[in-house]
Order: sequence, then C-alpha cells, then structure tokens
Amino acid sequence: MTRPSKRRSPCPVSCTLDLIGDKWTMLVIRDLMCGKSQFVEFCRSPEGIATNILADRLQRLVEHGLVEKAASDEESRRDRYRLTAKGKSLRAVLDAIAHWGLANIEGTEARLKPKEG
Amino acid sequence: MTRPSKRRSPCPVSCTLDLIGDKWTMLVIRDLMCGKSQFVEFCRSPEGIATNILADRLQRLVEHGLVEKAASDEESRRDRYRLTAKGKSLRAVLDAIAHWGLANIEGTEARLKPKEG
Repeated sequence: MTRPSKRRSPCPVSCTLDLIGDKWTMLVIRDLMCGKSQFVEFCRSPEGIATNILADRLQRLVEHGLVEKAASDEESRRDRYRLTAKGKSLRAVLDAIAHWGLANIEGTEARLKPKEG
Repeated sequence: MTRPSKRRSPCPVSCTLDLIGDKWTMLVIRDLMCGKSQFVEFCRSPEGIATNILADRLQRLVEHGLVEKAASDEESRRDRYRLTAKGKSLRAVLDAIAHWGLANIEGTEARLKPKEG
C-alpha cells in the first residue's frame, strides 16, 4: 500500500489525485497499457511529452510501486518499463476516462488498443 | 459536445485530461456530487483549495458545460453552482478513482457520500 508523504486529506479521491492527478501521468500509464515500454516510445506519442517531464513521471511511478524497470533490452541497452499489478489495477480508471471522453468530447478517437492482462 | 481549443491529440484520455487532469478539478466535482454548491463550502473542504484556484476551476467547468450557476441564494446572495448532466456523467470516473484509492492507498477513508441522481 502506498502512503504518499504529503497528503492533502484522507479522501481516496484526493490521495489518488496526489499520485496520478496531472496532465501526463495517465498518458504514460495509457502507453504502458498499450504495450509501450521504452523511453523513446513514450516520447513518440502524439501528445509530445517533454523528456524531463517523462523522466520525472516514470521515476514517481516507480517510487510509488505502479511501474517497475524490467531487464534492459540486451541489444539496445535501453531500459524497459512495465506496469506492476498495482499499476495495472488503474485500468478501470483509464477505461472510465476514455469512455467519458469518447462520449463527451467531439472528435476523439480510440486509436490505441489496450493489451489484455 | 466540448471541443477544447488546444488539444494535444485526438485521444479521448488526453482530451479528458485537458479538462479534468489536475489535482483540484475532480475535488470540486466530488464536492458538487456530495451536495456542496457554494464557493465557501468548497473552500471549507479539508484539502484547503486556494480561492484563486477554486475560482479558476469553477470558471473552466462552467465554460466547458460541466457546471452551471444556479439562481443565487436569496438570503445570502451567494452564487450557487451545480453539475450539469454532462458533469454528472463524470460520476463513473470519480467512482473509479475513489475505488482505486480505497483499495491501494493506506489510510484513505470514504467519509463523503455522493448524493443520488
């Protein structure tokens, strides 16, 4: 169980937003759920995350046990990241956000398909 | 349907986060779902939102059709805010966030009860 050091209140909504309540974190989690694992892959997503923001968000996700570093790719020597079980359990939050966007925001398209499991 | 002026991509997750992806907006929506309607009531929530941030978030929510100003309270002459149907449809997102927090973050407590309808 995570215990963020600075919590604003004991409210589960507030505490969850302390972890994922920004414009970028859930996009990194979306990418991980869709099978991306390398830093350069996250950078290529259409939203154009800045590398310093990406590095910060990945580090925070690792610190909070939502993401783990997998063994590096031997050929490229690039780190790989993957969701932990706890990170995967954010799937319901991601799905609810995606579903709301598709129903309420004109011109949105579900181009990415989350991987099962 | 909302069409944010600056969208990062057509992804429904990204576009939804453009509207609600910050540390405060969903807390205001939580308070509205729990029956709060006045500026001073949102200010009294335990997270201690700053008045300038609250004013900004309420204005954005009104601009995007998620919240509407109701008739002022005649006695106090204070504005009242309420969720539109579109705002109420964020209930599934709020519930998913709350559920995840309760299951994964130690010491969180569901003290507030959303109103039905």
